[in-house]
Amino acid sequence: MADAIGIGMVGYKFMGKAHSNAWRQVTPFFEPALRPELKVVCGRDREKVEKMARRWGWERVVTDWRQVVEAPDVQIVDICSPNNTHCEIAVAALEAGKIVSCEKPLARDTAEAEKMAEAARRSGKINTVWFNYRRVPAIAFAKQLIEEGRIGRVFHFRALYLQDWTLDASVPLLWRMDKDVAGSGVTGDLLAHIVDISNFLMDQSITSVAGTSRVFVGERERPEGGRAKVEIEDAAVFVCQYSGGAIGHFEATRFANGRKNANTFEINGEFGSLYFNLEDMSRLWYFDSLEPKHVQGWRELRVWEECHPYMKHWWVPGCAIGYEHTFTNQAADLLEAIHLGKPMQPDFDDGLRCQRVCDAVLEACGSQGWVNVKSGEGAVNA
Amino acid sequence: MADAIGIGMVGYKFMGKAHSNAWRQVTPFFEPALRPELKVVCGRDREKVEKMARRWGWERVVTDWRQVVEAPDVQIVDICSPNNTHCEIAVAALEAGKIVSCEKPLARDTAEAEKMAEAARRSGKINTVWFNYRRVPAIAFAKQLIEEGRIGRVFHFRALYLQDWTLDASVPLLWRMDKDVAGSGVTGDLLAHIVDISNFLMDQSITSVAGTSRVFVGERERPEGGRAKVEIEDAAVFVCQYSGGAIGHFEATRFANGRKNANTFEINGEFGSLYFNLEDMSRLWYFDSLEPKHVQGWRELRVWEECHPYMKHWWVPGCAIGYEHTFTNQAADLLEAIHLGKPMQPDFDDGLRCQRVCDAVLEACGSQGWVNVKSGEGAVNA
Amino acid sequence: MADAIGIGMVGYKFMGKAHSNAWRQVTPFFEPALRPELKVVCGRDREKVEKMARRWGWERVVTDWRQVVEAPDVQIVDICSPNNTHCEIAVAALEAGKIVSCEKPLARDTAEAEKMAEAARRSGKINTVWFNYRRVPAIAFAKQLIEEGRIGRVFHFRALYLQDWTLDASVPLLWRMDKDVAGSGVTGDLLAHIVDISNFLMDQSITSVAGTSRVFVGERERPEGGRAKVEIEDAAVFVCQYSGGAIGHFEATRFANGRKNANTFEINGEFGSLYFNLEDMSRLWYFDSLEPKHVQGWRELRVWEECHPYMKHWWVPGCAIGYEHTFTNQAADLLEAIHLGKPMQPDFDDGLRCQRVCDAVLEACGSQGWVNVKSGEGAVNA
Amino acid sequence: MADAIGIGMVGYKFMGKAHSNAWRQVTPFFEPALRPELKVVCGRDREKVEKMARRWGWERVVTDWRQVVEAPDVQIVDICSPNNTHCEIAVAALEAGKIVSCEKPLARDTAEAEKMAEAARRSGKINTVWFNYRRVPAIAFAKQLIEEGRIGRVFHFRALYLQDWTLDASVPLLWRMDKDVAGSGVTGDLLAHIVDISNFLMDQSITSVAGTSRVFVGERERPEGGRAKVEIEDAAVFVCQYSGGAIGHFEATRFANGRKNANTFEINGEFGSLYFNLEDMSRLWYFDSLEPKHVQGWRELRVWEECHPYMKHWWVPGCAIGYEHTFTNQAADLLEAIHLGKPMQPDFDDGLRCQRVCDAVLEACGSQGWVNVKSGEGAVNA
Repeated sequence: MADAIGIGMVGYKFMGKAHSNAWRQVTPFFEPALRPELKVVCGRDREKVEKMARRWGWERVVTDWRQVVEAPDVQIVDICSPNNTHCEIAVAALEAGKIVSCEKPLARDTAEAEKMAEAARRSGKINTVWFNYRRVPAIAFAKQLIEEGRIGRVFHFRALYLQDWTLDASVPLLWRMDKDVAGSGVTGDLLAHIVDISNFLMDQSITSVAGTSRVFVGERERPEGGRAKVEIEDAAVFVCQYSGGAIGHFEATRFANGRKNANTFEINGEFGSLYFNLEDMSRLWYFDSLEPKHVQGWRELRVWEECHPYMKHWWVPGCAIGYEHTFTNQAADLLEAIHLGKPMQPDFDDGLRCQRVCDAVLEACGSQGWVNVKSGEGAVNA
Repeated sequence: MADAIGIGMVGYKFMGKAHSNAWRQVTPFFEPALRPELKVVCGRDREKVEKMARRWGWERVVTDWRQVVEAPDVQIVDICSPNNTHCEIAVAALEAGKIVSCEKPLARDTAEAEKMAEAARRSGKINTVWFNYRRVPAIAFAKQLIEEGRIGRVFHFRALYLQDWTLDASVPLLWRMDKDVAGSGVTGDLLAHIVDISNFLMDQSITSVAGTSRVFVGERERPEGGRAKVEIEDAAVFVCQYSGGAIGHFEATRFANGRKNANTFEINGEFGSLYFNLEDMSRLWYFDSLEPKHVQGWRELRVWEECHPYMKHWWVPGCAIGYEHTFTNQAADLLEAIHLGKPMQPDFDDGLRCQRVCDAVLEACGSQGWVNVKSGEGAVNA
Repeated sequence: MADAIGIGMVGYKFMGKAHSNAWRQVTPFFEPALRPELKVVCGRDREKVEKMARRWGWERVVTDWRQVVEAPDVQIVDICSPNNTHCEIAVAALEAGKIVSCEKPLARDTAEAEKMAEAARRSGKINTVWFNYRRVPAIAFAKQLIEEGRIGRVFHFRALYLQDWTLDASVPLLWRMDKDVAGSGVTGDLLAHIVDISNFLMDQSITSVAGTSRVFVGERERPEGGRAKVEIEDAAVFVCQYSGGAIGHFEATRFANGRKNANTFEINGEFGSLYFNLEDMSRLWYFDSLEPKHVQGWRELRVWEECHPYMKHWWVPGCAIGYEHTFTNQAADLLEAIHLGKPMQPDFDDGLRCQRVCDAVLEACGSQGWVNVKSGEGAVNA
Repeated sequence: MADAIGIGMVGYKFMGKAHSNAWRQVTPFFEPALRPELKVVCGRDREKVEKMARRWGWERVVTDWRQVVEAPDVQIVDICSPNNTHCEIAVAALEAGKIVSCEKPLARDTAEAEKMAEAARRSGKINTVWFNYRRVPAIAFAKQLIEEGRIGRVFHFRALYLQDWTLDASVPLLWRMDKDVAGSGVTGDLLAHIVDISNFLMDQSITSVAGTSRVFVGERERPEGGRAKVEIEDAAVFVCQYSGGAIGHFEATRFANGRKNANTFEINGEFGSLYFNLEDMSRLWYFDSLEPKHVQGWRELRVWEECHPYMKHWWVPGCAIGYEHTFTNQAADLLEAIHLGKPMQPDFDDGLRCQRVCDAVLEACGSQGWVNVKSGEGAVNA
């Protein structure tokens, strides 16, 4: 029988639901050596948190995150609360000797992220950021194909993250649009994901960026009433240079009418290319230019065979998994890393590395030129 | 707080896993008025069932299905065991006053299915067959579009169910290939699904069929050793006539190299058309010929908005669900029907209606002509 | 400088335009050893034919096809007139020692087709039927992949030809819907194409068929005024058995709302599969099950490289050709065959072989059972 | 009978073939009021030009372009020679009172383009640049949908032009890679096309750009022997700001393995979006957010109906046209403009406007910041 490991979660809304489901589902599907127990969930509105806890099977409820950090039955502190809370909670939890898993973006800015990465290094505890898309089987498989040498020297990386849900000017100013809480707009919310995918897949680092951003709807209703100026960017686009000579461009927006979750990337290399779109998450498109010329073509790999990452834990070939499973896959890997005492990725250094690119983008969007990405701990090829 | 309802499940392998997950997940995602409790699971190999029960949270284990049927804490008997067991268990459960949910195909043949449908009618209890694909949001939504009058008089229905997993002659003779256990090959396994989709979506019944079938690999290893003649069909194809004048064709095979779960249908009507492929389960393609000519085109409906069937219970737009969720959706509808005392569909009469078409197909494949589908209880437009 | 060869064309409407363009374009693009000269075009309405001749560069006009057959400067008699004229003209032209290229279907029925094939054999002259889709580069390339052994033993063939242009009941009764002129409806017009593709690609023959057909709009306006009963089929669907054990199904209809030119086929074999759709005519989808499992996938072959059939005569990779080029490709092959004294395919025997399947389908659609395809000259594996 | 108009063409290689075909085919397909006569073709290698002239039906051959410009039977001087010749020939032809149609890019740089646009304005003669993709029916149709108000205020424009043919380091240094002849690399060759599409479709101008470019293969064989440094860019990527507040990004490369002719654009506006890819040139994808929510979806418009731009001149619905037809469409429009004395677009001012963006991109790629696009004659919203 597997040993138990106690989870304490801070935050209980959309991401709280996604994480709760992951902690629930990892046990039957992965049979991990460490079996998560949903000990305590924390939120400021006791009534709402209690309802959520009953629904998802959390044992008890607290309204002060310090009670999670200090709980003796909690080994993993799982942070799903808004961005402005990440730094303080994570540092405290690490200092209390906890394993910390923190929603992305790691922080509101590089300064916070550096504090967190430093605390993580100091603690020596396993730590991770929920860049869950690394665990989309098709993306994990892209990594494998790259490591098999199937792409070779990379010339181009291009990535989009397109949504359209704030196009409607009557959408209120939710926390994701509140600068104090979120830190930034699409940069932290969407660009962070695709920058992390670049960091994950490319053996080159983004070294400098130039770009521009826009606020298309300048004022919105506050959920609590009254109108407020929108201070975060609705859209951002940048070009970049990579440490190994590749060039790239990235775009994130919530104003791409008709695009719901179009998190896409394409890598073009000397031996082949890869293309992915999260709106078709079981597919990875692969072009192999080493094939005989007459049968070269983009191959539609359906990443749902037993031999593909994570898939042997789910159903049978041809049976798709969905959005939620990426979290369960990450929970499984975290439990495995803890059990084996192995490093877990992406960790806070990865979160910091991503944050540095995001901050360079924000700086570039407000300037007239190229901005270098800060190097240092967490930077590859620094 | 929701009332509890006890589940007793017979069978514990692939479908047992799918059903267990559905009973587990329906509570947090749908918050049903009746909360399922996983009381008892039954299988012949106690050790294996115990392992499965621990994994999925079943309270206790039995090795004789009669103990499920007779258990006072069980209100729903859920049958996931092989086809040759469905009739006896279902009839006993209905006679014991249980609600019965039975995996598809309902039975091995029409005679069994008639017995079961008759028992269901006699019992007056809610009963259902797990034709889970009716609960793919895109298929449920196809039904809605048809009911909105967007297709009109139907001329054509064509459906495929293509797989390739038995193409490899070294795949052993599993129970799905054993005539005594399964009753038939791809007819009960795959054709039954697409015939049920026709029954679900079309307001016309299949009245007569002509077709042919094949056994491509005539002999296989038995899992327990030794070789055996394959007596079920590896592939079957038929054309059909509908009660309202439409014509159709259907094909099911496990020898379509490269097709993993290609359960597809297309309906062509006077005002528009619909196309679906289970390998892209969040998509429904819709052609509307009432649009202005210059902007007519096949529309790629991504059935993942809150306004689409079942989707408000899951994540947010753009976040796909997968195979397993169709079972959870069906569990939710069954619990709702029980709670409200409403009929549940598909019921055993639907299972019987499908079985009659399947038996006509099997008869036609063995003859030189067209075969009429038997009418009677369970037949629409009889 | 290339030698000239004189063309005499009978018929001048849609197909006359397609053929005229082919004879015009073949010279600059293929630089054939025999350079076609557009000597004479024939039609019953002198004024219209003269207009057409000026437009397309025909040297002179006649109104009696015998003048084409007898013209000393005509070496190739090209027949594009309605189906009911094919037999008489072709036989006369062959007897006059001409090379004959005849639009498809070869004839209205098997009796006519036998006469024509017999006359062709007797004459010893090169003869061909314009089953132009054999010269879609992607289809010619499918043939090449099959001949390379990439598919192996074939289990399944399925083909559709779906259109929607007669769905509108106000479309008048054109010659293609007039039984006396066309011989049949979608069978000769559309099924003939996909049956010929099966004959071209499969090394197995269709030996027996069962099917059904429909007239959905029973009465239409005549172009010349007055209403008439529609006696040809608007749609037909059949299943079939192949000489080598494969099974197939075919469907042709002009009532598939939203499908304009969906001439599709799929072949599933032991080593791989192929899929094609004329609505995407530069693509051939190829699944290769001999690849390592993890990188197996449907490959989107864009058949526009220089190494692909016919493409070196056109533009550069990535520059698509269209519908009309299939005729030019066929004209080029015919001129080459004449120049080299090689056989040309498809010839009248191929046209007859196709006609026999079509007649079996029509007979099956009017009966209650399976119908064997007549064998004999022109039948493969008879 | 249509009046004749004499064509004199300078250049005879790939583009010479494309133009010759257009001048040949426009007559039967469009029946223009002015019928082009292929009077004279010019090239430096008399033997090769004579061969080409025979093949395509040009009446005579010259080796000095001045003989074309001065020929009394030439009304249209059609320039298909390399970029470094455009300016001198076009200015001379305009000064000689000829109509001029010039291949794109209009010139090697803005200075040349200004001279040419100035000469065109001075001459008062009709003039045009062969940005032939404006005449892809799907792109012309995109313009129509925008003008129907179906997109509204535009937020985003993104465009790619991806090829892979110079990835192979053994491809020699053709004129398109020679800086003196071509002026630039992918900027003039590929970016110019997509910048022109932006200029055509957007009612906003590109006002400033930031970007980067790369030479991935630094040295190549000269066709005439010997190795040479590659001085033009293999790839370039830039972000931009539009006069109306939209933001965009563009990329052109010949190093995108697997992409052959991926000239794509996407426009996201307040009421809808459009997407196009030249590799699927008959398709335009359209998302209409004014539809009822549940049936919103990307619509695959097949731009091959009679009601779509240019299509009534070609075949019937469902019969695709290809690459070459875009030139014929442009020839038809030019002949019509001349006949009616109407302005023709794109004209030299459009060519200049495009050149200014290209030059800004080249300047930005060599600098560390944003570069404003020069305004003036030919600039919209200047």
